[in-house]
Amino acid sequence: MTCPFCPPAQDNDELLIARLDICDLLLNRDQFFPGYCLLVSRRHISELFHLAQTERQAMMEEVNQVAAVLAALYRPAKMNYELLGNMVPHIHWHLIPRQTTDFLWPRPVWSEPHAPKHLSPAEYATAVVAIRAALTGKA
Amino acid sequence: MTCPFCPPAQDNDELLIARLDICDLLLNRDQFFPGYCLLVSRRHISELFHLAQTERQAMMEEVNQVAAVLAALYRPAKMNYELLGNMVPHIHWHLIPRQTTDFLWPRPVWSEPHAPKHLSPAEYATAVVAIRAALTGKA
Repeated sequence: MTCPFCPPAQDNDELLIARLDICDLLLNRDQFFPGYCLLVSRRHISELFHLAQTERQAMMEEVNQVAAVLAALYRPAKMNYELLGNMVPHIHWHLIPRQTTDFLWPRPVWSEPHAPKHLSPAEYATAVVAIRAALTGKA
Repeated sequence: MTCPFCPPAQDNDELLIARLDICDLLLNRDQFFPGYCLLVSRRHISELFHLAQTERQAMMEEVNQVAAVLAALYRPAKMNYELLGNMVPHIHWHLIPRQTTDFLWPRPVWSEPHAPKHLSPAEYATAVVAIRAALTGKA
């Protein structure tokens, strides 16, 4: 079975927000939960404890930095951080700003199926640019 | 509203596995997913980015250590790591060994409701002692 995260995102991927040291940050295609991002390890690895401590710490600082940026931009009631990988083991963090107004609040995002919400190319670009600017301190 | 994780677990809590530097480790009462643990911050805080970097790094090393121990004991197909807090914001990591034989595999544990699986006091004690021993290198 091929890994959907190998090779990494292409530079022209409309969902690519930033290449960080350890991970690539992508906007999730389904924006049912606005601001939902995926933080994808740049190398193929499946568990935190398979990483060397320095790499793991750097990854977790990226998780933290992205969560802080999404919280500042989207003003969620709570950030959700999930590392699952049951279907796609290649480490990818689900970082999801949760609003009290969202359909499933306060339950986990997986509690009920929903139709994916796709944006127009211009709307994807707006979100990507806003998150990228906040991440690089140019917001 | 009172926080169910303040004050912290009592020493005589049958689910308490270990007090680590940053978190308390508890067996989840519902053992529908065998080995499911909660790693609960010893202080009341709700987001990773509210922690100082040193404390956050220490917390994440505890998350990592516990995940490695659960993986060694339960031999899951995948560890799941989730920090949600929509209902109880006080940081508590859900650390869940997932088996390919479990009811919801490969979907997230929240995909469908299930009746909780409670153990006998002796069964809780067996799991708690086994995880504690592995955590302290005395397995």
